[in-house]
Amino acid sequence: MRPIALLFLVVAACAPTAPPANTPAPTDVEHPRLEWGMVLHGGAGVTRASYSAAELPLMEAAFHAALRAGHAILAGGGSSLDAVEAAVRILEDDSLFNAGKGSVFTNDSINELDAAIMEGHTYRAGAVAGVHRVKNPITLARAVMERSKHVMMIGDGAERFAVEQRIEMVDPGYFHTGRRMRSLRKAIEDERRAANPNGTAVLPDPTWRFGTVGAVALDKQGRLAAATSTGGMTNKRYGRVGDVPIIGAGTYASPACAVSATGDGEYFIRWSIAHSICTRTDLAGQSLASAADSVIMGVLHRTGGTGGVISLDNRGHVAMPFNAEGMTRGYVGPDGQTWMRMFR
Amino acid sequence: MRPIALLFLVVAACAPTAPPANTPAPTDVEHPRLEWGMVLHGGAGVTRASYSAAELPLMEAAFHAALRAGHAILAGGGSSLDAVEAAVRILEDDSLFNAGKGSVFTNDSINELDAAIMEGHTYRAGAVAGVHRVKNPITLARAVMERSKHVMMIGDGAERFAVEQRIEMVDPGYFHTGRRMRSLRKAIEDERRAANPNGTAVLPDPTWRFGTVGAVALDKQGRLAAATSTGGMTNKRYGRVGDVPIIGAGTYASPACAVSATGDGEYFIRWSIAHSICTRTDLAGQSLASAADSVIMGVLHRTGGTGGVISLDNRGHVAMPFNAEGMTRGYVGPDGQTWMRMFR
Repeated sequence: MRPIALLFLVVAACAPTAPPANTPAPTDVEHPRLEWGMVLHGGAGVTRASYSAAELPLMEAAFHAALRAGHAILAGGGSSLDAVEAAVRILEDDSLFNAGKGSVFTNDSINELDAAIMEGHTYRAGAVAGVHRVKNPITLARAVMERSKHVMMIGDGAERFAVEQRIEMVDPGYFHTGRRMRSLRKAIEDERRAANPNGTAVLPDPTWRFGTVGAVALDKQGRLAAATSTGGMTNKRYGRVGDVPIIGAGTYASPACAVSATGDGEYFIRWSIAHSICTRTDLAGQSLASAADSVIMGVLHRTGGTGGVISLDNRGHVAMPFNAEGMTRGYVGPDGQTWMRMFR
Repeated sequence: MRPIALLFLVVAACAPTAPPANTPAPTDVEHPRLEWGMVLHGGAGVTRASYSAAELPLMEAAFHAALRAGHAILAGGGSSLDAVEAAVRILEDDSLFNAGKGSVFTNDSINELDAAIMEGHTYRAGAVAGVHRVKNPITLARAVMERSKHVMMIGDGAERFAVEQRIEMVDPGYFHTGRRMRSLRKAIEDERRAANPNGTAVLPDPTWRFGTVGAVALDKQGRLAAATSTGGMTNKRYGRVGDVPIIGAGTYASPACAVSATGDGEYFIRWSIAHSICTRTDLAGQSLASAADSVIMGVLHRTGGTGGVISLDNRGHVAMPFNAEGMTRGYVGPDGQTWMRMFR
């Protein structure tokens, strides 16, 4: 085979799948390159009805505060790992995000929390799933990464480890908010109606499906990290675990690329979305924007999934494609200006 | 840039990382291409001391029986999904493999079983982790894939789903074998000695660390499937979950590539080993042998991890690299001849 023909073949093999003609255009493609900084999300699936007029400014204030917390750590020469943990903890502590304090209820009226964290330059990772009494699951995920031989712990075992490691524990009642209990009651009612041919079928509010928070950061030393935390899916059953604590699905970081995802967890697992994006940059030499768009618009969207990612490469490029109505997202760079948007 | 220079760059970006000079050579590279067939493993980390003279022929007979069961299904025009499930069930039912009946004990003297299954041409997947009473976790993983909206369920919730789906349940005592209890006692004793400066430090027997079973198959319709099941790590704590139920880490299948892994689970998660191999064939156009070797010898081995994979592409190429002392492995093609090997 002549070199030029081989070139064509190899380039074709490495090229992103073209999105179908009527795909929503990727958004926010043109962001400034950040010499260092943090990108944050508060979940895809947010709609204009997700927050009341009273709640919206409170939610925005918490989001900007989380960006500023990450900025302060990075500006002081701190690690990207510290920055993403600190930012995610702030959103976990706010009842307006579906993570930590604001976690949604399962069908059994309990809260099952999942989280994962990964450090790009060492490929170290930690994840927890199905915990009920851990105030900040992201901090437990980091403890699994740094203080155990393991990557993933689940359920009661993960909580035993948390107690031994003196991670802050709370009574399960800490997670019981009126907002989330109303969501559960509505979801159960909608499900009952959908199952009853005489009732009115109502699709579940996507806000409850996709709530997740996450951060990716690049520090002054050029190190990347990614962190994701969620309270799961309203009305979920059977100890369902979504993509958040699955390294490679909802969370991934390599020396060159960091991704945190939010959306239909099952799709993110089946296509190893976060790892796919990093592989396209690391192995196939695609730009981060092209890799993230081709996976979200070309794979996730084409196969019927909904959601998005925030991503950052080690040269400070930012990509945040999503195909939902909204995705709460933002970033901060060396100048300390916090940028935030919820819709297109 | 001239095309030839671009060619060089793209090929370099897509090329596998070269393994270090003194890496053990990949084994079994030259296998016949299977028009259709199944590849099976019974775990990496097997040593010449793993089985007694009385146990060895029994283990080999079960392994060949599992290959024949897969062959019978495929020969009759059945699906690769049916074949991998049937083969894994046979090994799960045999106490000489660390999966199902022969699962090892956790530090708490219980058994926590994990399994995953994936169908390549649909990207459907199912996984369960931390179940105690399910006779065949691989069948529960398949039920999660086929009869729920979810991909992964854990713990008690997964068992509630199993009961509802009429999956065969057993008393936890079903998994209590003398062989595995002796392993646990030895591991705890070894750990005690290792922690005691006056005792004799003994490294854990790798047999207990890596036991896993798995299968990949290609059917007459050209469809791939992968399945993996494990009883976990002897003496494990804290609800640790390894790579087996992590789609992309221990188990993955695409339309063109299927992988089942066995080894140091934490390494397989951090590098998304199974997905990495499929991505190198699907996206970067590497041959399966080159992709599997570059990930196992170039990534896993170089970073200090131990284990291996079985893999199969949709043209029937087989690759089974591993860097442990042994990996119980074998395959069967249209001629029905079963090939099995444990060491190099």
